[in-house]
Amino acid sequence: MNNTFTHLDDEGRARMVDVTKKDETVRRALARGCISVSAAVYEALVNKSVPKGDVFSTARVAGIMGAKRTHELIPLCHPLMITGINLDFELPAKPQKDGRYVVVCSCEVSLKGRTGVEMEALTGVSVALLTVYDMCKALDKTMEIGRIHLVEKEGGKSGHFINPSSAAPGTSAVSGISTASGLSVFPLSS
Amino acid sequence: MNNTFTHLDDEGRARMVDVTKKDETVRRALARGCISVSAAVYEALVNKSVPKGDVFSTARVAGIMGAKRTHELIPLCHPLMITGINLDFELPAKPQKDGRYVVVCSCEVSLKGRTGVEMEALTGVSVALLTVYDMCKALDKTMEIGRIHLVEKEGGKSGHFINPSSAAPGTSAVSGISTASGLSVFPLSS
Amino acid sequence: MNNTFTHLDDEGRARMVDVTKKDETVRRALARGCISVSAAVYEALVNKSVPKGDVFSTARVAGIMGAKRTHELIPLCHPLMITGINLDFELPAKPQKDGRYVVVCSCEVSLKGRTGVEMEALTGVSVALLTVYDMCKALDKTMEIGRIHLVEKEGGKSGHFINPSSAAPGTSAVSGISTASGLSVFPLSS
Amino acid sequence: MNNTFTHLDDEGRARMVDVTKKDETVRRALARGCISVSAAVYEALVNKSVPKGDVFSTARVAGIMGAKRTHELIPLCHPLMITGINLDFELPAKPQKDGRYVVVCSCEVSLKGRTGVEMEALTGVSVALLTVYDMCKALDKTMEIGRIHLVEKEGGKSGHFINPSSAAPGTSAVSGISTASGLSVFPLSS
Amino acid sequence: MNNTFTHLDDEGRARMVDVTKKDETVRRALARGCISVSAAVYEALVNKSVPKGDVFSTARVAGIMGAKRTHELIPLCHPLMITGINLDFELPAKPQKDGRYVVVCSCEVSLKGRTGVEMEALTGVSVALLTVYDMCKALDKTMEIGRIHLVEKEGGKSGHFINPSSAAPGTSAVSGISTASGLSVFPLSS
Amino acid sequence: MNNTFTHLDDEGRARMVDVTKKDETVRRALARGCISVSAAVYEALVNKSVPKGDVFSTARVAGIMGAKRTHELIPLCHPLMITGINLDFELPAKPQKDGRYVVVCSCEVSLKGRTGVEMEALTGVSVALLTVYDMCKALDKTMEIGRIHLVEKEGGKSGHFINPSSAAPGTSAVSGISTASGLSVFPLSS
Repeated sequence: MNNTFTHLDDEGRARMVDVTKKDETVRRALARGCISVSAAVYEALVNKSVPKGDVFSTARVAGIMGAKRTHELIPLCHPLMITGINLDFELPAKPQKDGRYVVVCSCEVSLKGRTGVEMEALTGVSVALLTVYDMCKALDKTMEIGRIHLVEKEGGKSGHFINPSSAAPGTSAVSGISTASGLSVFPLSS
Repeated sequence: MNNTFTHLDDEGRARMVDVTKKDETVRRALARGCISVSAAVYEALVNKSVPKGDVFSTARVAGIMGAKRTHELIPLCHPLMITGINLDFELPAKPQKDGRYVVVCSCEVSLKGRTGVEMEALTGVSVALLTVYDMCKALDKTMEIGRIHLVEKEGGKSGHFINPSSAAPGTSAVSGISTASGLSVFPLSS
Repeated sequence: MNNTFTHLDDEGRARMVDVTKKDETVRRALARGCISVSAAVYEALVNKSVPKGDVFSTARVAGIMGAKRTHELIPLCHPLMITGINLDFELPAKPQKDGRYVVVCSCEVSLKGRTGVEMEALTGVSVALLTVYDMCKALDKTMEIGRIHLVEKEGGKSGHFINPSSAAPGTSAVSGISTASGLSVFPLSS
Repeated sequence: MNNTFTHLDDEGRARMVDVTKKDETVRRALARGCISVSAAVYEALVNKSVPKGDVFSTARVAGIMGAKRTHELIPLCHPLMITGINLDFELPAKPQKDGRYVVVCSCEVSLKGRTGVEMEALTGVSVALLTVYDMCKALDKTMEIGRIHLVEKEGGKSGHFINPSSAAPGTSAVSGISTASGLSVFPLSS
Repeated sequence: MNNTFTHLDDEGRARMVDVTKKDETVRRALARGCISVSAAVYEALVNKSVPKGDVFSTARVAGIMGAKRTHELIPLCHPLMITGINLDFELPAKPQKDGRYVVVCSCEVSLKGRTGVEMEALTGVSVALLTVYDMCKALDKTMEIGRIHLVEKEGGKSGHFINPSSAAPGTSAVSGISTASGLSVFPLSS
Repeated sequence: MNNTFTHLDDEGRARMVDVTKKDETVRRALARGCISVSAAVYEALVNKSVPKGDVFSTARVAGIMGAKRTHELIPLCHPLMITGINLDFELPAKPQKDGRYVVVCSCEVSLKGRTGVEMEALTGVSVALLTVYDMCKALDKTMEIGRIHLVEKEGGKSGHFINPSSAAPGTSAVSGISTASGLSVFPLSS
């Protein structure tokens, strides 16, 4: 009698997973990504002469605010009361093989809640890097945002996860995202 | 008499560039990016068995909605009355060298207005790929979002720009973003 | 070589229709809807004794603000620079056949732009009626929102449209939702 | 001495009810509504040939995202950390008496929190149906959204409420919103 | 090896303070501010003849909705599940020394959570007063918003704070924000 | 027959003024306000030792983003395509009579459109000052935000307006908001 749209059942229907009965636990996630920029952009960043203004302060604020809006952007993410966000940049002085430079962005998000915060950390990194792009695009139209990945997460049933593609001897644990040693082993300039 | 914060002047202060006197012209931008996924995710995508539901429909809507919110996310972007958005995915059947697969997302944004829409296209791609990540993360925690770049833009004083890192013989112009030939030369699987 | 998701082509992919080349014209749309409420709610509305406060002022503001956010809520709606919104309520004194009363909400939206504003008017009505529901729900859990429809629109290529189910003089075809006199004097159809 | 605006006191002033001291309990609400569409729209929906694309996937995502934004739209709603959302459509094959068809939308929202989630469920339904309207409006300008009501809620001091206008022999409880039997008794085609 | 941006370290980098390990406690904050208006605006407010409509109802709703959006506006504010908001106006009948009048706005916000709500109360006052400004600006372009301050807060480690600049004999505690006595000692007309 | 709510008519109903037929003209508005801070906050600002990080960069971004969201916050404001925003701070070295210091914030907004942008400029100032408050509140709970006013506006039917309470010999016109001379006559420290 009813038209049952069975193919929709086959595909699965988007739904926000029910976490009502999960316990609230402390959760943290650290994500990282980068943007490749020309030598001219690199110089402008180092010399603080980017026409649109102070790039890293602006992008840091944008990334923090973006992380808070994750559930408005990603359809099936739960609204969460994030309890802490750190977001920072490093600008390795050594160019990549192609002569370009990278700006690395790391974002760590904390929560006491019922679901993980990796999407919030990844969104923070993405919005921060898009902001760097926006502020430098007058100087370079070939920038590329990439390597956005989860570095590490802890809390919740799945325990402590360290991304093997990111981890390496000396890579810092969650609490040490901005140590120079952590970033010096980040396989970006390889 | 006043404390002039001269170092702020040296750095430059963030400001939204004044485009009041620019003419309204037709502008288009095409951006592209990808996410690398495990073979298991690839299989689930092809077989439509991802637990959170229909990945590409959901991510397409998220990307379109995200592109419309660009000026809320990127601090110095102007609010724009976007007049058209196309967003789509392709899932090349051939794995990368490392055995993983990529999902390619392209987003084209149109406007009749005073400033370019590359940030809108890049934001659309970013939000769509974050949504793919979210829906597949139960299957693979090592996914990586990358290669987000401007493919092409036209309109405005700077004219028609084709990103040399993206363009290649056979690459489609703006109007042909979803042709298979366009994507077959996209240097993702190299 | 590529996995082409042909069924997605069959279904069609969501896209924001390109209106870049359309001319800007003056456009108006009028939408209407109602909520059926118990006699107790009716009394409280008439006597202004609803516990959560001044219902119609609050709902009017909510509807106006909701109409402005249409493009954030409805995925394929274009962002528009709405140039005027009127939103109002009528509370017919005569009960429906079932002894319940209706509150009628009308919302008119104006624009000089490239696409129609019926979704904005319909969203304004919907948000306003949801707000009435919220403010009265302590008194009646069986309220029902309904008869939300486009009454009339003008401007754009399709010209002046009058919804035949709504326009009949002296009747609310859509209803019983309001008395003819109330609606026939509404200054919009003049 | 002061101008006391006594009529404002008589009317009551809008305020967000204080729930600070309420306990957090598990709460669920199920809302439902429908849109009446022409036979042509019905055919297009069944055949997936609606010009704007995949209607139900898009509307489902819109409804889920809309439910999350309830507290931004409805002035006196509390911000809530929704823990689950299900939203779905059914398309009964039998036309109404007037020859038109209905699309039924149901939305169930879960929370562990201090206040009920019926407004979230009702908002989810409303936004999803507005999205259906938007995607089909090129085919039919006389569609009507209606019958938006609370079906059932549980949790909190007021206990388990089943809307007598909606309940009927065989109607499913909250957990069974998408069973065909539940919908077959839904009094929409009466 | 790395360019360490030491001046950024000196300045400090914006970060959202981590409150993950703080306990949830009941917190309240009361903020207050005012707008100075011409005698003509005062008369229009008293006589309810402001062209844009009902000023105080509209501004009250705007302030409540604004308070809920604090974490979207203020970069380092945590998202919070506000559990109650009261916002009100008083319009002292006695003019200031300069012949102008003031409208006083008070906003009290409640929360059971990990961080204080003074920013929410201050934002509520600010948005409400901006709304008064907007609705009266056709009558007076020299209005001034001012004296926005925290009156009192309680809950959390820092205990009960009463702002000495605001408190005075007879000034009400948090629970009495709208008593006439509280406002009669508010040092606005001095 | 109908319950006509005449008192609502007397009060006026909130409505968004219809500007559909107004011409698009270039418009600019400059608003200014300040926050009074303790000597300890002043020292921390000058020495860049505020615990939450770089205050002025963060507040500048917040103010710019807040100005763009004016129409979401102020119920009857039209959505506008702002074409430029400048926002800046000055920190006069001389204390006020009460030994406290002020931070002055100025925001200039540009538009080619149908309605003025003073609300956008005032909202930018308000959000920026609230952000300064938030970042310094650990050091001083008695800060006060005030003197928020329109300095100057131009464009539109009402022509060029200079606020007599703000203008003074040497005060710069709109284009010169950040000149030291402009601020040295700003009557804040009087």
